[in-house]
Amino acid sequence: MNTKKVTFLPDQKEVEVEEGVTLFRAAEQAGVYLNSLCGGEGVCGKCRVRITKGKARADKHSIVFFSKEEIQNGYALACQTQVKDDLEVVIPPESRLEEEQILTGSHLREQSTWSGTCPITYSEPDWVSLAKRPHDPASLFEPLVSKVSLELPEPSIDDNIPDTARIVREFRKKLKYSFYEIPLPCLQDLSTKLRRQGWKITATVARHNDVGRILQIEAGDTADRNYGVALDVGTTTVVIQLVHLKTGQAIGVEGSHNLQAHYGEDVLSRIAFVCGKGSTEVLQQAVVKNINTLIQSLAQKKVVDVEDITSIVAAGNTTMSHLLLALTPCSIRDDPYVPTVDLYPQILAKDVGININPQGVLQVMPSVASYVGGDTVAGVLACGLADRPETTCLIDVGTNGEIVIGNNEWMLSCSASAGPAFEGGDTKCGMRATRGAIQKVEINNGGLVYETIGKAKPRGICGSGLIDVIYELARNSILDIDGRFHLSIQDKRIIEENGEREYIVAFPEETEIGQALVITQTDIDNIMRSKGAIFAAIKSLIDYAGLTFGQLNEIYVAGGFGNYLNIDKAVGIGLLPDIPRERIEFIGNSSLMGARMALVSSYAFEKAISISQEITNIELSHFTPFADEYMAALYLPHIDKELLFPSVNY
Amino acid sequence: MNTKKVTFLPDQKEVEVEEGVTLFRAAEQAGVYLNSLCGGEGVCGKCRVRITKGKARADKHSIVFFSKEEIQNGYALACQTQVKDDLEVVIPPESRLEEEQILTGSHLREQSTWSGTCPITYSEPDWVSLAKRPHDPASLFEPLVSKVSLELPEPSIDDNIPDTARIVREFRKKLKYSFYEIPLPCLQDLSTKLRRQGWKITATVARHNDVGRILQIEAGDTADRNYGVALDVGTTTVVIQLVHLKTGQAIGVEGSHNLQAHYGEDVLSRIAFVCGKGSTEVLQQAVVKNINTLIQSLAQKKVVDVEDITSIVAAGNTTMSHLLLALTPCSIRDDPYVPTVDLYPQILAKDVGININPQGVLQVMPSVASYVGGDTVAGVLACGLADRPETTCLIDVGTNGEIVIGNNEWMLSCSASAGPAFEGGDTKCGMRATRGAIQKVEINNGGLVYETIGKAKPRGICGSGLIDVIYELARNSILDIDGRFHLSIQDKRIIEENGEREYIVAFPEETEIGQALVITQTDIDNIMRSKGAIFAAIKSLIDYAGLTFGQLNEIYVAGGFGNYLNIDKAVGIGLLPDIPRERIEFIGNSSLMGARMALVSSYAFEKAISISQEITNIELSHFTPFADEYMAALYLPHIDKELLFPSVNY
Repeated sequence: MNTKKVTFLPDQKEVEVEEGVTLFRAAEQAGVYLNSLCGGEGVCGKCRVRITKGKARADKHSIVFFSKEEIQNGYALACQTQVKDDLEVVIPPESRLEEEQILTGSHLREQSTWSGTCPITYSEPDWVSLAKRPHDPASLFEPLVSKVSLELPEPSIDDNIPDTARIVREFRKKLKYSFYEIPLPCLQDLSTKLRRQGWKITATVARHNDVGRILQIEAGDTADRNYGVALDVGTTTVVIQLVHLKTGQAIGVEGSHNLQAHYGEDVLSRIAFVCGKGSTEVLQQAVVKNINTLIQSLAQKKVVDVEDITSIVAAGNTTMSHLLLALTPCSIRDDPYVPTVDLYPQILAKDVGININPQGVLQVMPSVASYVGGDTVAGVLACGLADRPETTCLIDVGTNGEIVIGNNEWMLSCSASAGPAFEGGDTKCGMRATRGAIQKVEINNGGLVYETIGKAKPRGICGSGLIDVIYELARNSILDIDGRFHLSIQDKRIIEENGEREYIVAFPEETEIGQALVITQTDIDNIMRSKGAIFAAIKSLIDYAGLTFGQLNEIYVAGGFGNYLNIDKAVGIGLLPDIPRERIEFIGNSSLMGARMALVSSYAFEKAISISQEITNIELSHFTPFADEYMAALYLPHIDKELLFPSVNY
Repeated sequence: MNTKKVTFLPDQKEVEVEEGVTLFRAAEQAGVYLNSLCGGEGVCGKCRVRITKGKARADKHSIVFFSKEEIQNGYALACQTQVKDDLEVVIPPESRLEEEQILTGSHLREQSTWSGTCPITYSEPDWVSLAKRPHDPASLFEPLVSKVSLELPEPSIDDNIPDTARIVREFRKKLKYSFYEIPLPCLQDLSTKLRRQGWKITATVARHNDVGRILQIEAGDTADRNYGVALDVGTTTVVIQLVHLKTGQAIGVEGSHNLQAHYGEDVLSRIAFVCGKGSTEVLQQAVVKNINTLIQSLAQKKVVDVEDITSIVAAGNTTMSHLLLALTPCSIRDDPYVPTVDLYPQILAKDVGININPQGVLQVMPSVASYVGGDTVAGVLACGLADRPETTCLIDVGTNGEIVIGNNEWMLSCSASAGPAFEGGDTKCGMRATRGAIQKVEINNGGLVYETIGKAKPRGICGSGLIDVIYELARNSILDIDGRFHLSIQDKRIIEENGEREYIVAFPEETEIGQALVITQTDIDNIMRSKGAIFAAIKSLIDYAGLTFGQLNEIYVAGGFGNYLNIDKAVGIGLLPDIPRERIEFIGNSSLMGARMALVSSYAFEKAISISQEITNIELSHFTPFADEYMAALYLPHIDKELLFPSVNY
């Protein structure tokens, strides 16, 4: 074996690797995380690095991502370059996952905290006013795992029932389950514990169907020391919320990038990785590492003993849910899109490697279908769609857009492959909604004003920024209805590069990275396809239900655009239906909110199960009208502007 | 450390031990198992050995167990003697657990097999005619663990439910549970398995309350390869029965001595061991070693793959059940006699170290109270007591005697500390009912005829033999009503030794061990106390219920007397009530039979749970009339012979 030393700058992180290993893998080993959309296939060009010392061997196909000068300066794709020598490698800002800084959304009600290295923007679940819903499941407070303090009467000859029966008898006065179960580890020294502790104990009980499973017995009254974690496992981001289970209060939130991104940016490329050369365990371990880091960090900040965390409810799309449990995801990808399971078993968190109380449980939210997952079910739960007689629409825009329409009598769902454009992927200067991302843009009379997250020097453009740019370009007639740059337009911001037109949002001298931030014709085409797919999906579902948009009482929009979304502009580009704006609400992370509801309320979790079973999912790839709707939506805002977008006036 | 070599004869087994270790422990290390009633306390005198070379240090209190000559010849108690030198130690036959030979009961319907070293007599469960019971639970055939072969329709876009839902949908056509659960290990590669196997699979499902828990998925149709084990964990013996779960047929039986005997002969001394210097794990491991050896041996003989054994139902007294699961048994011993649990959790067999299919389950039969255990519940299940309108009595005679009286409307139970006399303990020449045990005795006109098990030279007297001897001595007026030898009697078989009278059952020249087999006045007193305790318990329960013996429709007698019990003589000494003999039936091992019923029938297991919850247990130590009943029963047959034993005519 021939090992080489690789030094990554500017962090000065060193690692020894075998000759032949890719720089991408070496960086990972060194704890330096690189961007990647394609999972190391050499096709996205996101993992650019610069080799400043030593020799490496790069795949020649990768030169298309670089200019002649860049190649001479040592630029290469990390995933296509093998270590052949001791190397010094510079990671430019745009290639790093770690460069992003702490961001706290301004509209958050509760103090939020972020792990040092991989912070993500998010929306606080309480952001949707619970008061709006007539039947609030969260009000039926009965956590997934409860701690109940008991003072048991001492046994006597007239009352010498077994210890477990004595516990259950007292329990039934406080919590009613049909059956009680005490797992073996908790039984083995129960007798000694009870007697040593003078019959004053606190029992930790998990509900599981109609069974109360007693997880641990502690001395004295520890009912106050009971915490749960609501977990949103997104394809891009992982967010946890720490909840005090005695009160139901959220006491902190923390988020990070999903480390699975190293193996592919979207669910399809991760499935391809698993079902090709990889394994479910690798991806499971990646996200479990996220979760453990977040839990440890947040618990420390909030002075909570990790042993006192007794439960986790996780919401994620079907692929994320499968990977968290290391379930083979391969059949999710292929027609007819069959997942392994929709109702996930309740397991011990430690069984997947999550470090909380060793008897603590992990419950994954039930999913509907391969592309309508537990995150959508959590969203439906959170926005109360299934509880109301009025018809409501939930639109969750991520790499896939999931749409649910319905009320307390029926629900339809579908999923459209939107692509990662709105999350900052798939565009030349796109980035996630973190510090330095351009999130608002206005163009008036040739003058452009933008606003970045954290008021920092711009590093890229996030989803809400891209929506604004396209809307503003269309409103200023720089783009035509096809989304093409008007050939006649003269604007110093419009340039041509590699044979295609680009619009400069920020000039090189304004930016953090010393390069212009642009939106290219290809970017615009990508965004048109994304917004077209989502709108066509909404329209298909509305038509399938025999409704009109006007009959929607409310539209909730969830997703990772940023902590800000200009509803008017999102309607203006044809992403959202043109209904009165006060009936459209951006609710941020509804997945996390639903997970928390299920964590604190057994009623809510039961409701989530019935939601998952009651939603009728429409596979758009087999729904004939969708293709026409999609074609019609590839315009700004739509080919049928008069009928569908009457209020859009450009 | 100073190690010494100890050689055990006649096996020539050698072991190196540290100086100071007891010979008992050294023997155990060498795989030589010695008798012990007291758990190494130096009070039972059963672990006699003879040191023929080298020096040892013996506790001087132990000399009371030996004659002067024996002491000069090097006799000592193994448990009270420390190794101080390289030793050569002879184990006399009466001190060995291993000497007992293979025995097959002649009335057994099915071929039985025994492990080589520690065979035990037993009764075949089928011995009780199932036809006697009007409602036979075992006829409702639905095993604890079923294998169901399924041919699933392939998914299509119109039928793309999750894989688990597809399985459950087919399952419901064959087996109805309210819920189905698939544990994580089985879920993880389910998708791949189903597709690789062309949707033809066999699912293994355990029932657990109303939940079907799918344990494994196999390719093709393997429904035929499904076996279970009925397990009787007795204080003295461990017996397993291998059952084909597709048909319910028992295909073999095997038994051995409970290795826990090294730590104490009865439950109280084992509890004392655990709650003093020992641990539950040591006793758990001992019995699990029994179980694994028996399963492996029987499976091999019957050409069954141990992986195809998917379930075990274990019946044992409450202490045995607790120790099998390593539950602290200490509070069982002390007033008010509280066990940890009565309804034992269903667990994976591997979690207690039992080697069957890694997903195979272990279910312990529910118990009633600290001294009325799962073995009694199994017995009640087996004899159908709880199903019939007529009042029946079950008497299970072991070290404790458990009695249940009742019918399909009410049941009472109690337990009396009988001592191990009827199992061959606590008497000078008592032995278990194995080869060489005198099992039948008749005395006529001064002449004595006996019959041994296996027609071998006698080595001791088992329970049924002792009952016969005492009955015959009373009938021949050699014993008076107090159970004392008539002082006036002249008989060459009556001798005096150490100041007390003994009756010689077999002269030294007739026996295997070259010593006379006798019954001493102390032995008789012990047996009187045993039979007195059992009869007084029955009488107390009958009185508590406001019944007379005549109102008992049937008495079932279970226990380890041997594979033969002379009912007439058992009534004759006052052990069993004097009702018409055709209404008394010796049923042998009813515990094993009940375990098998619960193994093959969910109805039977549910019935066992309701039996355990419906029986009202009477603590005799707190039941005032018991003491008087006990005193009145310390006669042959009883102080109130005229009223209670009118048919006994000696």
